[in-house]
Amino acid sequence: MSNKSFSLSGMPDLSSIEVKKREYVLNVMKKIFEKYGFQPLETPAIEKREVLIGNYGSDADKLVYQLLKSGDFLSKVDSQLLNSDYNTLSSVISDKALRYDLTIPFARYISKNQSSINFPYKRYQMQKVWRADRPQKGRLREFTQCDADIIGSDSHWLEIDLIKVYDEVFFDLGLENVILKINNRKILEGLFKIFSSDLKFTEFCIALDKIEKKGKNYFIDFLKKNKVSKKNILLFELLLKQSISINDLDSFFSKKIKSKNDFIDQGVSDTIAVFSRLGNLKCLKIEFDLSLARGLNYYTGLIFEVLNSKVSIGSIGGGGRYDNLTSIFGKNIGSGAGISFGLERIIICLNELNLFPKFLYDSLDVLFVNLGDKEAILSQNYIDKLRSFNYSCELYPDNVKLKKQLSYANKRNVRYIAIIGEDELKSNKITLKNMSNGDQHKLNFNDLINFFKNE
Amino acid sequence: MSNKSFSLSGMPDLSSIEVKKREYVLNVMKKIFEKYGFQPLETPAIEKREVLIGNYGSDADKLVYQLLKSGDFLSKVDSQLLNSDYNTLSSVISDKALRYDLTIPFARYISKNQSSINFPYKRYQMQKVWRADRPQKGRLREFTQCDADIIGSDSHWLEIDLIKVYDEVFFDLGLENVILKINNRKILEGLFKIFSSDLKFTEFCIALDKIEKKGKNYFIDFLKKNKVSKKNILLFELLLKQSISINDLDSFFSKKIKSKNDFIDQGVSDTIAVFSRLGNLKCLKIEFDLSLARGLNYYTGLIFEVLNSKVSIGSIGGGGRYDNLTSIFGKNIGSGAGISFGLERIIICLNELNLFPKFLYDSLDVLFVNLGDKEAILSQNYIDKLRSFNYSCELYPDNVKLKKQLSYANKRNVRYIAIIGEDELKSNKITLKNMSNGDQHKLNFNDLINFFKNE
Repeated sequence: MSNKSFSLSGMPDLSSIEVKKREYVLNVMKKIFEKYGFQPLETPAIEKREVLIGNYGSDADKLVYQLLKSGDFLSKVDSQLLNSDYNTLSSVISDKALRYDLTIPFARYISKNQSSINFPYKRYQMQKVWRADRPQKGRLREFTQCDADIIGSDSHWLEIDLIKVYDEVFFDLGLENVILKINNRKILEGLFKIFSSDLKFTEFCIALDKIEKKGKNYFIDFLKKNKVSKKNILLFELLLKQSISINDLDSFFSKKIKSKNDFIDQGVSDTIAVFSRLGNLKCLKIEFDLSLARGLNYYTGLIFEVLNSKVSIGSIGGGGRYDNLTSIFGKNIGSGAGISFGLERIIICLNELNLFPKFLYDSLDVLFVNLGDKEAILSQNYIDKLRSFNYSCELYPDNVKLKKQLSYANKRNVRYIAIIGEDELKSNKITLKNMSNGDQHKLNFNDLINFFKNE
Repeated sequence: MSNKSFSLSGMPDLSSIEVKKREYVLNVMKKIFEKYGFQPLETPAIEKREVLIGNYGSDADKLVYQLLKSGDFLSKVDSQLLNSDYNTLSSVISDKALRYDLTIPFARYISKNQSSINFPYKRYQMQKVWRADRPQKGRLREFTQCDADIIGSDSHWLEIDLIKVYDEVFFDLGLENVILKINNRKILEGLFKIFSSDLKFTEFCIALDKIEKKGKNYFIDFLKKNKVSKKNILLFELLLKQSISINDLDSFFSKKIKSKNDFIDQGVSDTIAVFSRLGNLKCLKIEFDLSLARGLNYYTGLIFEVLNSKVSIGSIGGGGRYDNLTSIFGKNIGSGAGISFGLERIIICLNELNLFPKFLYDSLDVLFVNLGDKEAILSQNYIDKLRSFNYSCELYPDNVKLKKQLSYANKRNVRYIAIIGEDELKSNKITLKNMSNGDQHKLNFNDLINFFKNE
């Protein structure tokens, strides 16, 4: 078994520095989420198959990892079933699947607990999700979503708080050049109604959402194919070309669209209401972008997408207003809004911009080298003392050549090594060596703690 | 879809207080692990099927969740395959499986990265694992293991540090009545050799491990069936009855066993070596228990199991010394030792003994009630200010009846509510009400922060 790879692509192991970087970012988010009144929720990695399959669209269904039934699933499979399609057979031999995002499990949770939840309900959730997608930079098969949602109110204060959460998180991480693209599904719906094609609005949004990946012509062709009139296509092309300031939103659409409708008016006034109360932001730059659509069906109002203009990794967050999140579970819990952060992509940004704090790379305060049994036993007293003051330290477990122990200390990025040898046994002092500048100190038991306290 | 359950048994959702309790315990462990020089590692939830299936024993294989291949797995299935057993068919239609424990992924990781890892390698890993087991109290299908291991040294200092980690974690959690049961596989192996049956040593250990669940007679019957002599069975029954002190370990076996062998001698001296250097413990009580065997194959020396004598939930931790952890991946990385904590069972103990700190139940410092648009906009200034000092607060998003807003604040366990109404708009002060004792204060903008700082 020795020459093969036992690892799966798109599902990396995370070494200690990678775990620490993740925790650093997660802790920044957690602090801000809680400051804004969001409370944590965790749902299981495994959901019933029917909760996931069928609720993300057929393209996404293919990316959901399905679990084989335990025990005798074969009894229900006959050779006729083998001639059926993937979906039919998998529905017989699988009854569970892995979390694909955090939104459907959140909707399931609030549907189940509707009577006990205190609405408006604010939760944050930072958990892994799995997608059988083609791995590439910034797209893994196991990755982490960090979501914050408020459900049970149609107040504009929801969007305001969510935008501020984005602003504070990216500010605390030291990220600059963060752009929040916004649009409003109501404005899009208003434009869509003017087009009066046979399309469904959700199909229109999904096609619009693909402009960034597939180019504008893909979208124009899509409109043509679906019998949108030349005049309307020209109008939409024109609108997409314009840069639109939020302050001028109302006059922009009044000028450009002759047959403006209630949807457009509502979308414009909702958008202005949010931004008029937003106040000063710390780092986010906001851009209105009419081509922003978001792929997911459930959005109904303001929508967001975040990116860093200096790192070409795609969006590092997104979200928006929705109305009927829980309808697939037969419940109506009312309007809500949410945002999501893409942890792994944020880490790519921080790595490329060199923004992780240096202390994350420290692994140990003091390594005590091991020069023999007596020396090790004495070292252990110093170690117990240091640990009682919460300094991290350890004894090299074996009495091997000092060179080997020092090489271990170097590779591990240890801050200090402590040496207790013959001299030190006699003098009852230890030698402490700073590994970054080579400074040495002879210290007795009591000096040691003071040395670290005054460091 | 509205009347059915969309949840899976043994895989609970975790509400905010449950998440906070988990994080509280995980943070205590993390702090101690790092103080002892352990560094974090995370491996993916999904492993190649062959990494998991076949490496835990056939009973455990049945509990591993297997993932259906993506895409066209059917092409390789014919009707003949349908007549084969679960294992044969699942090996064709599944190529991935969910993490069953943290030890095999750890072994895979060090096998893969042997050339770059700095040995002795110390890692901790706190992640979820999944088992298709029958759920009951203290046994979930999704649960969290917290492991610390050192690999690449046969020094007794490894076991010493691991026992101290147990001691410090349970002490910091405030748990009393924690018993560390210990035994040594070498002693068991020595006794096993005296029996000279046709059994394998691992079968002997697995049977011995089942005494706690199935009773002593089960084990005696097992020995009889496997042709262990009556004399030796009597001897073993006698040994199991005795309470053995670690200090008397050597004299105990010298007295009881006439034909003592090197295995027993080595096991005894290894055990004494560890305990003679252990020093004072903070809360652990140590008991030598000859019936302790641990079910897993890989242990070769000292073995541990932890339980709380006041809460009948079974073991809350376990571990030991092993020698050939990586051999299934064709590597030999040498001896190591590790311990594991069962997070969910520790939480059950802390709940039953009422040991979680009260602050975990606070959800928000201040809720600003919403009495109208002007009032809300002014409230937002106070909220921005409080948040800039890291106090958690929020505005009730809708201008609904005050009664409803107060009921929301009560249910949410908010510490203070802040009221800005007509009077407050005029006087430029807010009313702050302490929700636990009813005290009210009128405060201006600058007073507010001082009030919380001096709280």
